[in-house]
Amino acid sequence: MHLNHHTALSLNGSTLLRQIQELGDIGRDETDGGRTRIAFTDAEKAGRDQLVSWMRELDLQLEIDQIGNIFGTLPAANGNSDARPLMIGSHIDTVKNAGALDGCYGVLAGLAVVRAFRQASIAPPRPITVAAFSNEEGVRYQPDMMGSLVHAGGLPLQAALDSRGSDGTRLGDELLRIGYAGELATGSIVPHEYLELHIEQGPILEAEGVQIGAVANLQGISWQQLTIQGKANHAGTTPMQLRRDAGWAAAAIITFVRELASRSGTTLATVGSLHFEPDLINVIPRKAVLTVDLRDPDDSRLQAAEQALSDYLDTLAQQEQLGIHSEQLARFIPVQFDPALVAEVEQAAAARGLSCKRMTSGAGHDAQMIARIAPSAMIFVPSQGGVSHNPREHTDDTQLLQGAQLLLDVVTRRLLA
Amino acid sequence: MHLNHHTALSLNGSTLLRQIQELGDIGRDETDGGRTRIAFTDAEKAGRDQLVSWMRELDLQLEIDQIGNIFGTLPAANGNSDARPLMIGSHIDTVKNAGALDGCYGVLAGLAVVRAFRQASIAPPRPITVAAFSNEEGVRYQPDMMGSLVHAGGLPLQAALDSRGSDGTRLGDELLRIGYAGELATGSIVPHEYLELHIEQGPILEAEGVQIGAVANLQGISWQQLTIQGKANHAGTTPMQLRRDAGWAAAAIITFVRELASRSGTTLATVGSLHFEPDLINVIPRKAVLTVDLRDPDDSRLQAAEQALSDYLDTLAQQEQLGIHSEQLARFIPVQFDPALVAEVEQAAAARGLSCKRMTSGAGHDAQMIARIAPSAMIFVPSQGGVSHNPREHTDDTQLLQGAQLLLDVVTRRLLA
Repeated sequence: MHLNHHTALSLNGSTLLRQIQELGDIGRDETDGGRTRIAFTDAEKAGRDQLVSWMRELDLQLEIDQIGNIFGTLPAANGNSDARPLMIGSHIDTVKNAGALDGCYGVLAGLAVVRAFRQASIAPPRPITVAAFSNEEGVRYQPDMMGSLVHAGGLPLQAALDSRGSDGTRLGDELLRIGYAGELATGSIVPHEYLELHIEQGPILEAEGVQIGAVANLQGISWQQLTIQGKANHAGTTPMQLRRDAGWAAAAIITFVRELASRSGTTLATVGSLHFEPDLINVIPRKAVLTVDLRDPDDSRLQAAEQALSDYLDTLAQQEQLGIHSEQLARFIPVQFDPALVAEVEQAAAARGLSCKRMTSGAGHDAQMIARIAPSAMIFVPSQGGVSHNPREHTDDTQLLQGAQLLLDVVTRRLLA
Repeated sequence: MHLNHHTALSLNGSTLLRQIQELGDIGRDETDGGRTRIAFTDAEKAGRDQLVSWMRELDLQLEIDQIGNIFGTLPAANGNSDARPLMIGSHIDTVKNAGALDGCYGVLAGLAVVRAFRQASIAPPRPITVAAFSNEEGVRYQPDMMGSLVHAGGLPLQAALDSRGSDGTRLGDELLRIGYAGELATGSIVPHEYLELHIEQGPILEAEGVQIGAVANLQGISWQQLTIQGKANHAGTTPMQLRRDAGWAAAAIITFVRELASRSGTTLATVGSLHFEPDLINVIPRKAVLTVDLRDPDDSRLQAAEQALSDYLDTLAQQEQLGIHSEQLARFIPVQFDPALVAEVEQAAAARGLSCKRMTSGAGHDAQMIARIAPSAMIFVPSQGGVSHNPREHTDDTQLLQGAQLLLDVVTRRLLA
């Protein structure tokens, strides 16, 4: 049965592109063209409802787990209903003012794969499950990639549900409020293999003119929140040498981590969030709260960066008579994907005549969590200008369809070859 | 008549201390002991109402001008009602989470001076006007010292009324809403001489063990708001050398101005307010908005600091491919107070046996505006630890009463000697 079915599977590209656009219209901000569907908000619920209705159109077996992960399963041919599924996943939550592709592309391409099976009336030899994992972005509740982390057993369900948001809300309450606190025990669906298709969110493929990235590994990530306690004082009367300026210390840390990263060559360092108190023009900041995002594909180098920052904070606190408190918000060691799956991506690309590059993912993805419990790999397509988390995030339709076709090819090779 | 009256005037210290406490209880935050009466808010209206009721108790002639400045005048002895008044002024608005003394002490000590005249049933040879100027702190609407600036003709009334607050409100609307849009044309009451008693808000008098500061001059102040436009991008995929990081640029500016000030020895530089957009842990800041507060007693040095900052911003914008826009929020040249009045303060202190130091004010005060239209001077009392704009702002009662007594002495010397 296998080989002749293979050729019967064809990608419905126009439906995929239309669904990307329709999902991207949910949570849209008319002024700047972005969309905001932060996990467990009303806008994200609307996105979930849309995805679920599309899964129902494909007559998938729908399951929601206790952290709100959504699974739509195409059943296997008779007799194989208990087999572990091949899972295709990503997420549909967004950052604030996001593009339409990050996460959504991978989930909807998963639907395109099962749609190809449905339209060819082929039941696969093992189930195919399309997964949309909760709260990948980690905007309101930390850590990010939370849904897949809980799914992989890396974070207890109760701790996730008890997370406090940056707006003071409790995650479990918000999940219940939007109607996506499901009954399926988390971690119930263990994939046989896991694939995730994603835009690169970086400039490498475009810069090198390569069509496909076969993602072989993933950077380690360290997120910290630093709270600096200084002394508020009058800007016009306090001599420079007597200041305990929490704002200046935050600035010194920002310049320090950039130098650290630039020296290292492989480490990336970002301070994306910073707040002063009392935040007044003529008052020396009493308090500063900032985040530090450190990444490196090599864990020993990531640890070295963390240690260098920690040493610097000690020195700074002493020199400036400040209190500096560090809280670890997230810490993920670098991930190696499954060599056989990565090679399959490369071979499938070659078979289609697509140029392909083995690469490291700079961003975190749900695949890094699922890699703990199943052989996993990722496929990247180029991101124009490397721009992501931004309304100007863009990948040409041709490239989006090439990636989805390749995903279908890899699935076909694993299931039907 | 003059000399015998002099000795009949005595300060009612307990009333002064009680009024400082009662005014300080308005807008009180129970958790941290501070109070917040930002100009033209409900809490500040409550403070105004209290001040007006105390002026009525002293049977002062009450006038509110079009920018909300409050004037309470003790009339002169017969025949001198048209004479220009000796004015004693300061302000009763506060920063967020403030102490009880900044501004309020000077206004209430003014009331204590006229109370001494009332209790001795002495009508002064020229009127004594106690003034509470609007929006000295400039928290919501800039520039600060706005009421006295408009009074002195340095800012057109309409421009002040049209000011947009950090909360989007229009000053004139808020002034009307709290019922303090008065009818008196601004600038109507030109003082013969102007005196302002204030806590030092700096550490010098306490550190040197001196009881009284005879303020001879006042630093120049330059306030700018800088808006940095970079590019939002993913923290995990954007190589360090390709970033256009508005947050890092803000940090570089903060460290630059501190070095600039430290090198200069006389310039003070403060970045008290800073905001990132989109302010997310894993997104490189697209935008940063920060304030820069530069001060120096010498205008040429202040100009040099402004120029050095401007040159640095040009270089930074070019090197980092950023847009940097600078908006001047306030600019006041250094002020020299009236030598005869300053000498009078020193002589009065000597006559009371109080130690006294000629000094520069680091903070801005209403006196610097009124100095444009009348001979002016200020009296400082020590601030414990130099702390101000903070609930821990403190001056011992003994020192507060010494300062108020000295103010009464100086008024007596100018009017009755």
